[in-house]
Amino acid sequence: MAKQKIADQVNLLSLPANAKAKPARNGKATAQSMATRQREISVSEFFSRNRHLLGFDNPRRALLTGVKEAVDNSLDACEEAGILPEIEVALEQLADDRYLMRVVDNGPGIVKGQISNIFGKLLYGSKFHRLRMSRGQQGIGISAASMYGQLTTGKAPRIISRTGPKRPAHYYEIQIDTARNKPQIIREEEIEWDHGKGTQIEIEMEAKYQRGKQSVDEYVRQTAVANPHMTLRYTPPDGKSIVYERSTKEMPPEPKEIKPHPYGVELGVLMKMLQATPHRTLQGFMTQEFSRVSVRVAKEICEKADLKPNGRPKSIAREESDRLFKAINATKLMRPPTDCIVPIGEELLLQSLQQNVTAEFYTSTTRPPAVYRGNPFQIEVAIAYGGDIDPNGSIGLMRFANRVPLLYQPSACAITKSLIDTDWRNYKMSQSSNSLPSGPLLVMVHMASVWVPFTSESKDAVANYDEITKEIRLGLQECGRRVGEHIGRVKREAEAARKKDYIGQYIGHIAEALQEILSDSDKKTKDVQANLKGLLERSRS
Amino acid sequence: MAKQKIADQVNLLSLPANAKAKPARNGKATAQSMATRQREISVSEFFSRNRHLLGFDNPRRALLTGVKEAVDNSLDACEEAGILPEIEVALEQLADDRYLMRVVDNGPGIVKGQISNIFGKLLYGSKFHRLRMSRGQQGIGISAASMYGQLTTGKAPRIISRTGPKRPAHYYEIQIDTARNKPQIIREEEIEWDHGKGTQIEIEMEAKYQRGKQSVDEYVRQTAVANPHMTLRYTPPDGKSIVYERSTKEMPPEPKEIKPHPYGVELGVLMKMLQATPHRTLQGFMTQEFSRVSVRVAKEICEKADLKPNGRPKSIAREESDRLFKAINATKLMRPPTDCIVPIGEELLLQSLQQNVTAEFYTSTTRPPAVYRGNPFQIEVAIAYGGDIDPNGSIGLMRFANRVPLLYQPSACAITKSLIDTDWRNYKMSQSSNSLPSGPLLVMVHMASVWVPFTSESKDAVANYDEITKEIRLGLQECGRRVGEHIGRVKREAEAARKKDYIGQYIGHIAEALQEILSDSDKKTKDVQANLKGLLERSRS
Repeated sequence: MAKQKIADQVNLLSLPANAKAKPARNGKATAQSMATRQREISVSEFFSRNRHLLGFDNPRRALLTGVKEAVDNSLDACEEAGILPEIEVALEQLADDRYLMRVVDNGPGIVKGQISNIFGKLLYGSKFHRLRMSRGQQGIGISAASMYGQLTTGKAPRIISRTGPKRPAHYYEIQIDTARNKPQIIREEEIEWDHGKGTQIEIEMEAKYQRGKQSVDEYVRQTAVANPHMTLRYTPPDGKSIVYERSTKEMPPEPKEIKPHPYGVELGVLMKMLQATPHRTLQGFMTQEFSRVSVRVAKEICEKADLKPNGRPKSIAREESDRLFKAINATKLMRPPTDCIVPIGEELLLQSLQQNVTAEFYTSTTRPPAVYRGNPFQIEVAIAYGGDIDPNGSIGLMRFANRVPLLYQPSACAITKSLIDTDWRNYKMSQSSNSLPSGPLLVMVHMASVWVPFTSESKDAVANYDEITKEIRLGLQECGRRVGEHIGRVKREAEAARKKDYIGQYIGHIAEALQEILSDSDKKTKDVQANLKGLLERSRS
Repeated sequence: MAKQKIADQVNLLSLPANAKAKPARNGKATAQSMATRQREISVSEFFSRNRHLLGFDNPRRALLTGVKEAVDNSLDACEEAGILPEIEVALEQLADDRYLMRVVDNGPGIVKGQISNIFGKLLYGSKFHRLRMSRGQQGIGISAASMYGQLTTGKAPRIISRTGPKRPAHYYEIQIDTARNKPQIIREEEIEWDHGKGTQIEIEMEAKYQRGKQSVDEYVRQTAVANPHMTLRYTPPDGKSIVYERSTKEMPPEPKEIKPHPYGVELGVLMKMLQATPHRTLQGFMTQEFSRVSVRVAKEICEKADLKPNGRPKSIAREESDRLFKAINATKLMRPPTDCIVPIGEELLLQSLQQNVTAEFYTSTTRPPAVYRGNPFQIEVAIAYGGDIDPNGSIGLMRFANRVPLLYQPSACAITKSLIDTDWRNYKMSQSSNSLPSGPLLVMVHMASVWVPFTSESKDAVANYDEITKEIRLGLQECGRRVGEHIGRVKREAEAARKKDYIGQYIGHIAEALQEILSDSDKKTKDVQANLKGLLERSRS
């Protein structure tokens, strides 16, 4: 028993399971000797070995990823509970290559029974199984950060959570048993805590703090831009706190959960749904389990598939479900409802951008909702031009997905691609082929969706779906056009001013010449001069 | 009971779990209402929604990925069992967007009890838990292909396997219960099969067949290049089979399994190993559970850490393990053993390349083994120049990891990066900045390792570790230099030949002039002419 336990524990470290396989006769493996080695790999083992997939590939990025996952969760929880988020982020340097990150929120807290799972188990959460916009979606992030801390320092993350001022605050130290992907509670107690409600997480990890691009500083700054209803106090390792105050007290509207749209469902999934549905008729199944299927539409689909609307879903054979699938995709359906996604909005985008940078021109647009593979999404673009923005080199680009800034892998991202594919020379900007435009431009692009298709688990880049790049391009063009008009107007005005100055220089001479010819009085000449000036002003304004 | 089952089944389809959460009082969520939604996400659900991470993002790529995963497994199994691989790959078009892929091998077969797990469960396999070079490593590939087929067509993959001519052949139809990540056996029987031994898999899937780059054709061709001991019969949808015959009957040497190298172990892992070890002394633990730790080295480490070599591993406290960790990394250790990786070899690389393309110059190099993060790896480079290779545009590049061709995401790959970072103008090739060189060049790079760090689960690109890019660059430089020398030699020879021709034209005239001056006989003049020609030949060769 004890031995078995030891063997298991060794396995959980992803070490080779030595001496387990039966040696085959000639030293070569056989199906039988190979079978003794075949076994389950826990998802924690998998990701601890592949942790670069989760954004923990180097100490600098690990610090950013840890903070990001914690803040994402805090914001999601606050919004879902209807609480204006107040968040603290603090970094402390403990040794040359070791930091403590602390994130505290004023959210709803986590009930005692769930704390260990949420921080000590990969692929556990509340957001994966529903179609509704949120920052987190996979149930990996924060537990991966815990695991990384544990792997690199051997220390368990420390969690405090309280669900209300009259309830106790629970303190936990939790490790992940990587072989089983299960939480191991190291310590657990009720403590005094000076927060009435909320959650605090502290993770000690091998990390590196560095300012600049792709830093925690930058992440925090951009998060404030995309979340104007949030107040965030950030204390970097030097102890000098920065507070990002909210610019609105209005909560963003709560996104609604939706049912899947029929266009996004594949044949295999449809067949399983038919088997699993509690509805007794095909029509009931179609109208109740999908969005945008009215009774009329359900009947139309059934007719096309040559199936009876009152037939039993469970008794539909393979071939018939194939017909049903084709009929669905041959029927015109309304787009999915879009109250499942909540854009930031043109006005708040402008305000955020104005707080962030002093420019001479700002513009923003929120595109109408669109759909990719049955998933609703919405694109927003905001641009600042001129002013304090550095006019040299490539433009600044801030990418966001569901209000979360994306700092890594810009070149793999559909947002960057769309920006490059847009012809900015149409908008009086310079741009060499296959490059970002150059000039004093700061571009912000936000994709809001019930399911953002990221190119990796670390959620750094949006995958290249045609529907998505098209919408981004349209948003960029709309704002780009306005910037181009602004640049044109400024140019014209400057030109006019130049001409005016030029003509203005001659007014004195003309007046003098007139005086000489007409022998006018000095006063008359002054009047003439004033009249001429007035004329010039009027003609050029 | 029945209802519970239905609910579970719906969850397994990654649909929203409607109406499960308690509604909170004011319509807003509370910690309690949120807790009712928090639950486990199965790894199959996760990857079925994120299947672009596994290489199934579009129908064309899905076909390639399916074939690749099956062939990789076949080759691994054959080699482990010491069998010269004979593999059949066939594609059949069933409908406009639907194909059947079939892969049959002569491998050792799979024991009955393991068939359903291997094809019907993600993260299951024999290769993850050991340090030894193999094509597969994650236990995801072939079950992901099964899952994709099931999702897009609703059909279960069909498997036949037999472990020997005297044993029965087992036929299986298996689906994945995605909610539980468990195999569901649809059909299971013993059948007649005309193969004495081996495994066959058939998957029906939504797919697209197209020739050219990134096609199954190209994958098969490149696989033959990197596996000269394999015979592969490939039948594309048009039915016209191609056979790639093996060019050697010698099996590659079998890679040995190794223990982890101390430099690659992190503090958290070391602490768990100390807790889990069956060894009673620190010295025994160090020498038995790691590679390259002799008794002398173990004592040296203990001394540096101020720990007793005969102390009990289990009783080492946190602080002490921290000292042990630092002492390990401050002690000079031999590199890990390298018989865990098996390069293709310079000679076989040359042969393969010669079979593949007709060029005027070939060269190859196998670099000495190196180490990244404790993992041994080895780089091989082969180059063909001139001849039939297209001299226009960018050069051809074939990337391989553990003998598997990598066809997607070239720009994310350390191999491409190293090729661009090498200055090919030193080797008489043209290259613009930040680009591949251009000219009639075909470059092949192979990375062999116990653990190839891929940038995604779809295993398309090698991650950018400095140690790896450095080795690739050194290999490229070595071959590049030889190509440069060849180009120089050819140029010089062409130049010499030109001069020779030029001087040769005058020999006749010189001989005639001599005849006139010396009044030689015609015979003498002919001799003079021959002598002069001989002189020219000798002086120029």
